Amino acid sequence: MDVIERLARTLLERKSADPAASYVASLYRDGLDAILRKVAEESAETLLAAKDHAAAARARGTRDDALVHEVADLWFHTLVLLAHLDQNPQWVLDELEKRFGTSGHAEKATRPASRNP
Amino acid sequence: MDVIERLARTLLERKSADPAASYVASLYRDGLDAILRKVAEESAETLLAAKDHAAAARARGTRDDALVHEVADLWFHTLVLLAHLDQNPQWVLDELEKRFGTSGHAEKATRPASRNP
Amino acid sequence: MDVIERLARTLLERKSADPAASYVASLYRDGLDAILRKVAEESAETLLAAKDHAAAARARGTRDDALVHEVADLWFHTLVLLAHLDQNPQWVLDELEKRFGTSGHAEKATRPASRNP
Amino acid sequence: MDVIERLARTLLERKSADPAASYVASLYRDGLDAILRKVAEESAETLLAAKDHAAAARARGTRDDALVHEVADLWFHTLVLLAHLDQNPQWVLDELEKRFGTSGHAEKATRPASRNP
Repeated sequence: MDVIERLARTLLERKSADPAASYVASLYRDGLDAILRKVAEESAETLLAAKDHAAAARARGTRDDALVHEVADLWFHTLVLLAHLDQNPQWVLDELEKRFGTSGHAEKATRPASRNP
Repeated sequence: MDVIERLARTLLERKSADPAASYVASLYRDGLDAILRKVAEESAETLLAAKDHAAAARARGTRDDALVHEVADLWFHTLVLLAHLDQNPQWVLDELEKRFGTSGHAEKATRPASRNP
Repeated sequence: MDVIERLARTLLERKSADPAASYVASLYRDGLDAILRKVAEESAETLLAAKDHAAAARARGTRDDALVHEVADLWFHTLVLLAHLDQNPQWVLDELEKRFGTSGHAEKATRPASRNP
Repeated sequence: MDVIERLARTLLERKSADPAASYVASLYRDGLDAILRKVAEESAETLLAAKDHAAAARARGTRDDALVHEVADLWFHTLVLLAHLDQNPQWVLDELEKRFGTSGHAEKATRPASRNP
């Protein structure tokens, strides 16, 4: 069982956890907007960390802990969002997979037309 | 080999692809800000789709294609970002894993203190 | 009549303009999500421009055209949003004014409690 | 003297205020990233409030306090950003003005080409 799948199971278990004892359970209790605020916050943190990465002189391919943390935070809170709305993260992975069965610019063509006006 | 790993390999291969033929190669060519704009855009799309999800009357646990697409787009563009900056997505998965070796509010405590002022 | 007020009037007039001839009219036609995508995009552009500003060596107080443009774009699209939803921008200015009738940390205390959990 | 100008002056005065006594002074002390996190947060709050506005049945043209507050918060924190980076908000108003001296789609054409790739 891979990491995303294990995380997804743990996140579902937290639905019955005590909000005082579990950060995830406290997010579920606070509701959708609280979770979306975290998604937006971690997206902004990712931008800031990536710009800091680019501004710093850094050996290519070295792990940038700050950036790795922010992307982990972003994925984490989208997984919480999916669990909160009873959406299976496997559907997201399937979607990613499908997009890459094709090649080149076809990647993008699989996205719904309405999204690229 | 799981989906994230396969995607990561494909994204690295696209570094030598023709930007006219590959959407990902065109993002690399456009550079960091172009990629970050997409991350921010997909984060906003995720917010909008999640609010639409909540506003619609919907059978619990049914797949919401719009939301699934937006989260896939968001993960996809963060993977492009990681590839662009030579960061291994496995480091992000390791980070997620580490966070869940612990339980309850400890999840959050593993995040760097500087991030929660 | 100040700039914001004049802009607000012009934005209202554009409600009856031809979307093919007016960018603002085309935003109204595309609807709320299209406008919100622009607000999110310009917010991200502001972050990127501000980080570029900080990374560049720059004489203090010199006008940074890129940053000024992005903030103008952000304000502009929030004004379009207000017009689209029939909200008077004067209400926003009143709110800003009210917040500064008070001093020190009182500024923040005037914000609704629910927003700062 | 209009609201924006008065706010700008107050924000500059707060540069010498005690961070323990002034929210704005505490933002200056926390630095650019802290201010940008607030800009991103208030942008997200604006999206959420606008979607709530659209989902609610509401008499047209009634003041939506939640939305008005969030837009005020967003403008407020961009004004703090400008002050922090020694940028005059009048430059932003000038930019908005210039954009509207022209009509129709010309509005957009005044934006720098590099921004619309």
